Amino acid sequence: MKIFGIDPGSDRTGYGCIESSGSRHRLVTCGILSAPARSTFPEKLLVIHRGLKALLERHRPECVAIENIFYAKNVRSALKLGHARGVALLAASEAAIPVVEYSPAEIKRSVVGYGRAEKAQVQAMMKLLLGLDAAPSPHDVADALAVAICHVHTSSSAVGRAAGANGTAPRTAVRSWRQFRP
Amino acid sequence: MKIFGIDPGSDRTGYGCIESSGSRHRLVTCGILSAPARSTFPEKLLVIHRGLKALLERHRPECVAIENIFYAKNVRSALKLGHARGVALLAASEAAIPVVEYSPAEIKRSVVGYGRAEKAQVQAMMKLLLGLDAAPSPHDVADALAVAICHVHTSSSAVGRAAGANGTAPRTAVRSWRQFRP
Repeated sequence: MKIFGIDPGSDRTGYGCIESSGSRHRLVTCGILSAPARSTFPEKLLVIHRGLKALLERHRPECVAIENIFYAKNVRSALKLGHARGVALLAASEAAIPVVEYSPAEIKRSVVGYGRAEKAQVQAMMKLLLGLDAAPSPHDVADALAVAICHVHTSSSAVGRAAGANGTAPRTAVRSWRQFRP
Repeated sequence: MKIFGIDPGSDRTGYGCIESSGSRHRLVTCGILSAPARSTFPEKLLVIHRGLKALLERHRPECVAIENIFYAKNVRSALKLGHARGVALLAASEAAIPVVEYSPAEIKRSVVGYGRAEKAQVQAMMKLLLGLDAAPSPHDVADALAVAICHVHTSSSAVGRAAGANGTAPRTAVRSWRQFRP
């Protein structure tokens, strides 16, 4: 199973592609997409989109895993983040690769075992789980790898989920189950 | 001068292209981009992006005018709107067409004369200014045409503005002027 994780951001978008047998994971590639500092906002979006599109074409993952966002510091940062996330989802959609979404707490719980884990803990766990010499840095790279591994863990336990029609709050198998058998 | 206005939205994106001599405007094309109701969110973004890309290639406007957004009902709607706006800006960036941004109040003031004008007033003014038989409908189409005409009015008075580096709050000629000569 080949999974491509994305941690979108208008200044810096982290990505990480892994191959996994379910219990063992191997790093395929990871890194950061970032436009020159003086770029206009539309130019930054272009760099993210072109970069992701090229990577998805090269690696042809079975799915794209991305953090699901329900809140942000404020409306302004939500808007900025939305722009970056929009072009990331578009790249997946253009490549006809299904998108799966997980909340920040689900990702941390899945890879660290604790939903409110620190960024450094996520980085340390990525080093461990992928057998790397050093922790992936900056944290955007570790976060992208974490959402990919979260999907492996989750789908191994048969609770995969598709991106919802509204893009933010998919009805999940887990949730329906909880809903009907509280 | 050929201007392409966009009113982005994840469910419905309005667009309108006009040609203008400065004082007289002519409608080139206008309409709505909207994905089938049951589409996933990434599919909706694909419909907006493909549609705008094709329209920009066909009409080759000198610039794309789009509403500048500083607030939304809540973080969740800001996120959704950000996704749609992101793929719209991307389409302009891919076509190497400069983007200009205006606040909702600037647009209304420019086309109706009053910054808090109602949607119906904007629609009625679009009918008048473009010499149409009926008011453009739904209001997303009128709003897209309004931002295009706003740019014509504004740049006729030599106060054009480029999209800011952060995509939401460009430093404008007007603002700098106001800032230094209060």
